[in-house]
Amino acid sequence: MSCELCDQDGGLLVWRSDKLRVIRALDANFPAFYRVVWNAHVAEWTDLPPPDRSHLMQTVAKVETVLREVLHPTKINLASLGNVVPHLHWHVIARFADDSHFPNPIWGEKLRDVAPEQLQALRDALPALDAALAGVLAAA
Amino acid sequence: MSCELCDQDGGLLVWRSDKLRVIRALDANFPAFYRVVWNAHVAEWTDLPPPDRSHLMQTVAKVETVLREVLHPTKINLASLGNVVPHLHWHVIARFADDSHFPNPIWGEKLRDVAPEQLQALRDALPALDAALAGVLAAA
Repeated sequence: MSCELCDQDGGLLVWRSDKLRVIRALDANFPAFYRVVWNAHVAEWTDLPPPDRSHLMQTVAKVETVLREVLHPTKINLASLGNVVPHLHWHVIARFADDSHFPNPIWGEKLRDVAPEQLQALRDALPALDAALAGVLAAA
Repeated sequence: MSCELCDQDGGLLVWRSDKLRVIRALDANFPAFYRVVWNAHVAEWTDLPPPDRSHLMQTVAKVETVLREVLHPTKINLASLGNVVPHLHWHVIARFADDSHFPNPIWGEKLRDVAPEQLQALRDALPALDAALAGVLAAA
């Protein structure tokens, strides 16, 4: 059976190791939306041996830390769902009080429209953020 | 400012340590919905020092493991959002292909009605699961 996270990066590739990769999700409503994707095809976080679980979460923590330092979001949202694509990946999303869904989860009801220039301003900050992330991830 | 996860357990208490607690969320649509709540009031997972982050995630892994062993869910969903209650807590939810929202996130669009007796059958299994969880958590 074909799996889109086996076949493709799953977004804009920020950094890759032999075990995992960090991608930017290119979501129209949530520009600062990253994913940490385990390279091998496993469905559940606890399918990994404990050292790999920990390595994955330490990578999630690095992504969260850089997002907080650079963007000062209202809240970080973390999730590992995989109901549609059961290939282990963690969502790391910078949420803002004036984003389209806050305080709802991004999967919940939309609460407001966001001006295109506001989304674009956030989008413009992301190439520098991607570079900062790649630096932090490579330094480990 | 008052915080409901400072003031209350936040659900049916399954187990508590000096650092954290595990509660069952008592959600009408998703009976097998647990939360690991950090006792102290911090907003973000990376507000914790790395050993506490790891301790918290190892507890999440134990809850996930017991849910998988006892219930054999279609998928485990993990999330730390906290947009409404910014007091660090992890959702650990056993999802089933025939639950009301699958494969949508529980915060997304409802896709089907579930027979009350199907929900009750799952609910009936949970006191034994709570006891198994408490045993695993206490043994650590």
